[in-house]
Amino acid sequence: MQVNGERLWADLMSLGQIGAGQAGGHDRQALCDADGDARRLFMHWCRQAGLSLTVDAMGNIFARREGTDPSLPPVLAGSHLDTQATGGRFDGPLGVLGALEAVRTLNDAGIATRRAIEVVNWTNEEGCRFFPGLMGSAVFTGALALEQAHAATDRAGRRFGEELRRIGFLGEAPMGGRPVDTYLELHIEQGPLLERVGVTIGAVTQSCWSAMLDVAVTGQNSHIQSTPMPQRRNALYGAALLIAAVERCGYAHAPDGTASTVVIDAWPNNRIVLPHLVTLSFGLVCETEATRTAMLAEIDAAMARIGAETGLGFETRLRRLRDPFHFDAALVAATEQAAQALGHSVMRMRTRPGHDAFNMSTVCPTELIFVPCRDGLSHNEAEWCEPVHCAAGASVLAAVMLERANR
Amino acid sequence: MQVNGERLWADLMSLGQIGAGQAGGHDRQALCDADGDARRLFMHWCRQAGLSLTVDAMGNIFARREGTDPSLPPVLAGSHLDTQATGGRFDGPLGVLGALEAVRTLNDAGIATRRAIEVVNWTNEEGCRFFPGLMGSAVFTGALALEQAHAATDRAGRRFGEELRRIGFLGEAPMGGRPVDTYLELHIEQGPLLERVGVTIGAVTQSCWSAMLDVAVTGQNSHIQSTPMPQRRNALYGAALLIAAVERCGYAHAPDGTASTVVIDAWPNNRIVLPHLVTLSFGLVCETEATRTAMLAEIDAAMARIGAETGLGFETRLRRLRDPFHFDAALVAATEQAAQALGHSVMRMRTRPGHDAFNMSTVCPTELIFVPCRDGLSHNEAEWCEPVHCAAGASVLAAVMLERANR
Repeated sequence: MQVNGERLWADLMSLGQIGAGQAGGHDRQALCDADGDARRLFMHWCRQAGLSLTVDAMGNIFARREGTDPSLPPVLAGSHLDTQATGGRFDGPLGVLGALEAVRTLNDAGIATRRAIEVVNWTNEEGCRFFPGLMGSAVFTGALALEQAHAATDRAGRRFGEELRRIGFLGEAPMGGRPVDTYLELHIEQGPLLERVGVTIGAVTQSCWSAMLDVAVTGQNSHIQSTPMPQRRNALYGAALLIAAVERCGYAHAPDGTASTVVIDAWPNNRIVLPHLVTLSFGLVCETEATRTAMLAEIDAAMARIGAETGLGFETRLRRLRDPFHFDAALVAATEQAAQALGHSVMRMRTRPGHDAFNMSTVCPTELIFVPCRDGLSHNEAEWCEPVHCAAGASVLAAVMLERANR
Repeated sequence: MQVNGERLWADLMSLGQIGAGQAGGHDRQALCDADGDARRLFMHWCRQAGLSLTVDAMGNIFARREGTDPSLPPVLAGSHLDTQATGGRFDGPLGVLGALEAVRTLNDAGIATRRAIEVVNWTNEEGCRFFPGLMGSAVFTGALALEQAHAATDRAGRRFGEELRRIGFLGEAPMGGRPVDTYLELHIEQGPLLERVGVTIGAVTQSCWSAMLDVAVTGQNSHIQSTPMPQRRNALYGAALLIAAVERCGYAHAPDGTASTVVIDAWPNNRIVLPHLVTLSFGLVCETEATRTAMLAEIDAAMARIGAETGLGFETRLRRLRDPFHFDAALVAATEQAAQALGHSVMRMRTRPGHDAFNMSTVCPTELIFVPCRDGLSHNEAEWCEPVHCAAGASVLAAVMLERANR
């Protein structure tokens, strides 16, 4: 069974018109107007495919193809339609529209399944506007309280719950609490491995060890033109030394460990005053726990050294320490077998980025299926996945989905 | 003749209640509501002192004490009531209220002067909300076009001209274009020299060589969790290396030269994406032109080296290259003599920070009179000037003012 690759590609490109960015990609951050538009287009396609739609209090959308035994827990497959502020056309949409295409392919072939199949769009996977990411699946699986998610605010102070209502996706379906048989997610790799070795399908076994920290660097306001250098307590200077140390730590531990600083804000941030406060956020991802421990210790030591040298204050706040999520061994094997049966090269691999599959793996057998993306680039408007790889991934997804739905 | 130090102090502390900050100081940036309140209180005091008020199209306020020969160009004395976002109670207000106190002292003594005396409050000296600073005096002296000043926008996109109208200070008095006999400005030193040597009055001879540059660092967006370190083009890393190089250049050239980075913005500035663009601003001040040339060359070289090492793009924009302004030799001498006659220690010195006196020195004999501030600290809410020093400075100002107004 092969999906209709052209139909899938046409949908990806159509959706790619919504929330167009400046360089061929997207700014379709969670719960912006364009997110609402993308959801409505997706729901239109689901209705065309004969699926019944429900939306829960997180705005998660479930498009259900009923099974011959509606009493059985369904097979879920999907991903997310939101993007980064500088996002592409595949990170997220491929998993949602790939699952929809798989269901359409079953429809076209007139294949009924024992279990229902539901295509899911999780709300706010990216976490760039409302922290944290993977939010819709986190509330669905009980990892995050609904109230806490609704209270999240963006930089402009707008609340998640209000924005959800504003775009019309504060739904009434029960929030999680129902059994799921299997969760499958198709996604671009967002790294260079598959492309480098020329393999089409990645059967993801687990995630990595990661950490995300916020740091507040405190100095003292004073006049940039008149303060003698020995008296300067420029918080931005300390932040810069730390940013350099974090990135150097990443280079030193690559490829096992990576680290970068990505967020910075300075106060009062004007041309005439040395800033008294700079906040920054850095993240690291490691193949082993030992590497993460070592890197965090090295960065801690660098901070202490910079603090001693500059007289600036450093206060860290651990925002997330994430240990690996493990995917289902039987599903990994099923993915390999499906890929081979379809004539696609396949390899087992880990994921470094986070996915909604992390949360789902805590409540049901879960598998994440990767396809290559050009130059391993994502979270960039130039993000690209070849049509043939989109189709291959969706066909593997369809095969595993069919097998699981007929258990 | 001694001014009433207690009255001056009471005014400084009263004004210090307007736009109160979080740490005893101010956030009274130009054309905010608090700036309007401070202006109205100042005008109330001027009316009490019998002065006649005019406001020009820049919102500059002139409070005039008529002379016996109204046809003669007046003596102007003042400074500014706006503050930094983290400002103190003296940087600016001391010069305005010190001049008002000098005029009141003449009133109390029943002394008439040949020339009129005008106390002036210049709009937007600080330049922290609307760039550039020294704006009101720049338009008054013809250094900046009125339309250009009115078109300046703050970070929220609000226009200077609209904000000026909003707070009720878009005045109708003719914009500059009238002869001024003398300009005098009393100000805290904003540096540590007077305090360090125990001298009360600084007779300022000239300013220094300064520069202010904006830099755009360009990299490439990509996923913080999955991009291999060798492929990362993290604009924030390049910015950090440059910030460190700028500050180190400042330390290397101190005390002659100083340099710091004070402003930074990153895009898209979220936790999951390596930023593709970081902009920053740095400034330097030097005692000699040769030092400024050397420092700019060193920073340029550092930028080229960082660009080559990281593959990031660096684009600089020179925002200001300011050569020294020289104050009037006769007024420097007059300041010294007045200080000595009043029993205050006095020394000649330069100013590193910018002042409205810079602009005024291009149209009339001008002098800047400094008094010590605690720890040389300014642009900080803890900024402090001893009452005795405020009074001493105002008394010297009154003496020079009287001498010049009777020429």
